Amino acid sequence: MASVDVGVALLGYGTVGSSVNRLLVESADEIERATGHRLRVVRALVRDAAKERPFPVGDGVLTTDFADVRDDPAVNVVAEVMGGLEPAGEYVLELLRAGKSVVSANKQLIARRGAELFATASAAGVQLRFEASVCAAIPVVKVLRESLVVSNVHRVLGIVNGTTNFVLSRMERGGSYAEALAEAQELGYAEADPTDDVTGADAAAKMAILATVAFGSRVRLEDVECRGIEEIEPAHVEAARGLGMVVRLVGIATLANGFVDVRVQPALVDRSHTLAAVDGAFNAVMLQGDAIREITLEGPGAGGIETASAVVADLVSVVGTAGTGFLQNDACWRELERLPPDDWRTPFYVHLEVADRPGVLAHAASRLAAHDVSVAQLVQRPHDGGASLDLVLHEASIGELTKALREISAFPEVLRPPFVLPVITEGSL
Amino acid sequence: MASVDVGVALLGYGTVGSSVNRLLVESADEIERATGHRLRVVRALVRDAAKERPFPVGDGVLTTDFADVRDDPAVNVVAEVMGGLEPAGEYVLELLRAGKSVVSANKQLIARRGAELFATASAAGVQLRFEASVCAAIPVVKVLRESLVVSNVHRVLGIVNGTTNFVLSRMERGGSYAEALAEAQELGYAEADPTDDVTGADAAAKMAILATVAFGSRVRLEDVECRGIEEIEPAHVEAARGLGMVVRLVGIATLANGFVDVRVQPALVDRSHTLAAVDGAFNAVMLQGDAIREITLEGPGAGGIETASAVVADLVSVVGTAGTGFLQNDACWRELERLPPDDWRTPFYVHLEVADRPGVLAHAASRLAAHDVSVAQLVQRPHDGGASLDLVLHEASIGELTKALREISAFPEVLRPPFVLPVITEGSL
Repeated sequence: MASVDVGVALLGYGTVGSSVNRLLVESADEIERATGHRLRVVRALVRDAAKERPFPVGDGVLTTDFADVRDDPAVNVVAEVMGGLEPAGEYVLELLRAGKSVVSANKQLIARRGAELFATASAAGVQLRFEASVCAAIPVVKVLRESLVVSNVHRVLGIVNGTTNFVLSRMERGGSYAEALAEAQELGYAEADPTDDVTGADAAAKMAILATVAFGSRVRLEDVECRGIEEIEPAHVEAARGLGMVVRLVGIATLANGFVDVRVQPALVDRSHTLAAVDGAFNAVMLQGDAIREITLEGPGAGGIETASAVVADLVSVVGTAGTGFLQNDACWRELERLPPDDWRTPFYVHLEVADRPGVLAHAASRLAAHDVSVAQLVQRPHDGGASLDLVLHEASIGELTKALREISAFPEVLRPPFVLPVITEGSL
Repeated sequence: MASVDVGVALLGYGTVGSSVNRLLVESADEIERATGHRLRVVRALVRDAAKERPFPVGDGVLTTDFADVRDDPAVNVVAEVMGGLEPAGEYVLELLRAGKSVVSANKQLIARRGAELFATASAAGVQLRFEASVCAAIPVVKVLRESLVVSNVHRVLGIVNGTTNFVLSRMERGGSYAEALAEAQELGYAEADPTDDVTGADAAAKMAILATVAFGSRVRLEDVECRGIEEIEPAHVEAARGLGMVVRLVGIATLANGFVDVRVQPALVDRSHTLAAVDGAFNAVMLQGDAIREITLEGPGAGGIETASAVVADLVSVVGTAGTGFLQNDACWRELERLPPDDWRTPFYVHLEVADRPGVLAHAASRLAAHDVSVAQLVQRPHDGGASLDLVLHEASIGELTKALREISAFPEVLRPPFVLPVITEGSL
């Protein structure tokens, strides 16, 4: 096989960018064996060309001028590893229009501007790949698009944010949310500003991308119901333990009866469930479909070299499939309706704090029953002079449950707003 | 994209073959979106064309004459789903020579005759894919070859046989090996003749294939150290429980210092290890490498429709990459030496039954120490008038351990041959 040089440009040369260059250099032989081509970084766009770099590039490769990348005929394919929405978005569009395939590690960009980006790639006849934008080195996009092409995946269930998974796992050993978060920051599992992680925004972008690929219908970021972990208290973790469960931030995308529902929220996960076993900062994605039942992929969902490895795998796939038309187009081929959010059904956990007076329990139970919500498990304990009730409910729609809880909250005996989480067991999801 | 018909032939039209046809028919649109082509079964080789079929084919498709498949110019790609070494092997070779790409679900064939088959495919300029030969729908071959191309995978650790995983999991709830096996047979998780599964032969073929792909060096079936589960007794399961572990049949392939070691054997697996959580008849494969740390794929490792889904994914990949040279060649590009089997190192579990006389323990400990084997945990219990010793040893070479145990066995106080299993914890492997 003839060895042909393929020119690669990098937008950004930080941790991920320099790791991409290192992998391309150190694994040049592996890549040539796989594709018949030698890939070489010929341009890298940076803000400051004078800054010291962890894995230096050759003379003349660094540039601060985007036009040097866009207009260089030696650049065949570009890896966008700079992050942020702008100027990254405009750069990617310009590159695609200029006939260069792009690999992006930018989940916010893909989740927010996917439609426009893929349409541009398609019009220009080039590829846009984005494996690294979801769960770093875990090859869930390739598996969904290439291995499960006939599997009719109808549910994607995932722990797709390592920071929150670490924090919630840590809380099981005691301590508050704030203490667990501080420890995550100390160990480098959480950023100084953890907002994107703890609010679920990071997970929501990943779930939007995964649901889009899995269901073939565009899921926009604003279509994702999202709730973070800031309100999780030690008492919830403790109550979960009593029920044989753990609290985890879970992404749940469902395709049912032609409707799509995508959400990110804390949930109670049965200890025997695969997702409960996902360790610390790892990620896991479960894909459920007709022919495959359930396939789970687990691994490190973040990290410079891990993300770089996915970027390089995408570069290899771009080069290896150039000219074939194989799975290079937009994954979307239909427009499915969003499930009205109230119609989403699952088993639920509800925590109530009530004054310890006769009839409260009967009252609450009758309001649930009136909305067709039935109780699977109940634990009542004395609490602060009153009582706390932990209920596990059979599958119900969140709309009906919300109505029942609104009526229950109206009782003077109910001392705090009810606290609600979905419950995930082997049978339920 | 123009819709072009691609003619598919099936060798075999049993459970898997008919499922392949069903998936091709029912997912024709998905496949066309992915590849630009419509795939259609035009020939299916069977022994008895008159037999009733679960998903019937069109008139004139069934044939009992292999030449009809080989010589039909309308056949572009063939799925070998008949199983067995012959005539399947000869058929595949003839098809490759005739210029037809082949997808095979036949692990014994790929593991035993891989070198010859891939050389033939390469000489003819066609593809030979084999995802379905390992762990059914779990896309481990594609992930290894395409996603982890620069990851230098140095260890593959797997539960790759669902039957033995079911039997060993079942034994934890009490009962003998024979009882658990009988239950597995009743539930359809074990064949009437379970030899291939319980001896580890099935797992060994899968590990040979996985190690070959992961390390890029041919691992022949006879290079795999293999030990089955027939000798596992309730007492071992019980002892494992006492140590916080479970007994599982594990495949372990290691590349270290340029040497390859591949083995299948029962092992004690720590309860917190990912492999311990693999449920019943499911399979899981952990891939450890430089850039990715560790990626685990889990799912159903057997089943007609699950296997068919992998066959179809391979057909789609063949059609989608025709003409590109991308990752279609033999995965082997080097010849690595096999590690001398005695040099393999791991922590071990050893069970000894001894007469309860003073000095036995000191004796045993001194023989271990003499061979540089050190004890991490020890539990002594009264047993049958004597004592049983359960030892967990720190990492040692199996050669040194065997020497030490030979010396220990020579003591008159040692009542039965020592029973040895490797131990797998997060730290060890």
